[in-house]
Amino acid sequence: MRVDIAKGILEKNDTLAEENRRLFAESGVFVVDLMASPGAGKTSTILATIAALRDRYSIAVIEGDIASRVDAEKISAHGVPAVQINTGGACHLESDMIRRAVDTLDLATIDLLIIENVGNLVCPTDFDLGEHAKVMILSVPEGHDKPYKYPNIFQVAEAVILNKYDTMGVFDFDESEFREVVGRLNPTAPVFAMAATKGDGVDAWATWLSDRVEAAKGGAA
Amino acid sequence: MRVDIAKGILEKNDTLAEENRRLFAESGVFVVDLMASPGAGKTSTILATIAALRDRYSIAVIEGDIASRVDAEKISAHGVPAVQINTGGACHLESDMIRRAVDTLDLATIDLLIIENVGNLVCPTDFDLGEHAKVMILSVPEGHDKPYKYPNIFQVAEAVILNKYDTMGVFDFDESEFREVVGRLNPTAPVFAMAATKGDGVDAWATWLSDRVEAAKGGAA
Repeated sequence: MRVDIAKGILEKNDTLAEENRRLFAESGVFVVDLMASPGAGKTSTILATIAALRDRYSIAVIEGDIASRVDAEKISAHGVPAVQINTGGACHLESDMIRRAVDTLDLATIDLLIIENVGNLVCPTDFDLGEHAKVMILSVPEGHDKPYKYPNIFQVAEAVILNKYDTMGVFDFDESEFREVVGRLNPTAPVFAMAATKGDGVDAWATWLSDRVEAAKGGAA
Repeated sequence: MRVDIAKGILEKNDTLAEENRRLFAESGVFVVDLMASPGAGKTSTILATIAALRDRYSIAVIEGDIASRVDAEKISAHGVPAVQINTGGACHLESDMIRRAVDTLDLATIDLLIIENVGNLVCPTDFDLGEHAKVMILSVPEGHDKPYKYPNIFQVAEAVILNKYDTMGVFDFDESEFREVVGRLNPTAPVFAMAATKGDGVDAWATWLSDRVEAAKGGAA
């Protein structure tokens, strides 16, 4: 449904998002919101990020899904605090859901909070959660034409991860066209080629992210 | 956003959907609505379906996307009438969009109308377009856990296509678990394994669909 029919909902969401952001700043927590299609590899990217950064930072995860606890269980199995949000029918997370999830965490002990949004290239783009950066993951099997069809999500992202990069030979994916169109929509966003389940290409992404975490810690000090 | 905040919209949509359905019945047109994640292979499935059935039936296509005419152009290149709907921000098609698109087609000359919904596993499930069957496509790279996370779309579908089946060896996809969970959610829906871009497994799907087209033609006679 169109977001313009629900201006009041967006305004209420944005007010709560600002409160979340203030709360995060007080504790020096950097918060990243991962958005992608279903099955693009959001949870795998989180696991790869945890593996790369857990020695340096205390990490927690909020998992958003319509139903099930599948993803939170995957994260918890690695000894990282994970809160599952089930949205019922909603195709994205909202700031009040994040607030309730955050209330179950001890922010003072966390450096990096990773939010996995509901698998969707449309709905999450309009909702500020109080995060510091939205990051968009596209997986190679989805095809290089997605920026034409879903331009907004590429525009609101501060970085783009091109995941399942190891399957480039299996699919008809034109990487140079993809990078050109993303660059037109969003000239400042880096594009990180990655195969999260294999750990390939995770370093560049982890460096970008840790630079942001350091800046957030500096801000709180 | 939650659909229950917009009950009036759903009721208006359903009334127009009934009108669409009556219009389709008068002309003996069978209408199928394809739903899937971005990049699951909706357009490829349509092209494979056209290749399999164009000698028997007159086919037309309605393409739904947030933006761009990419898909309609792909279909038109094969000499099949294709109408592109751009929803702007909306994450699904609605019955009034279908009606406006249908008004540009000559229904009397069409046996099978294929609607490609916006790439999304959430929003399209609640909106009746006046179609005779919703069909859901999941692609192997998305992973076998999707029925846990997005149960509703598997419940409203009359058939499920498991696409990109040729990449089964590349991804960690548990087909028996997938079929078991889908069977629990929706015991009557057949699951068609397919590799649409290669034409593999298209016959069984095309047979199921043509049985439905024949029934619709019979009803109009």
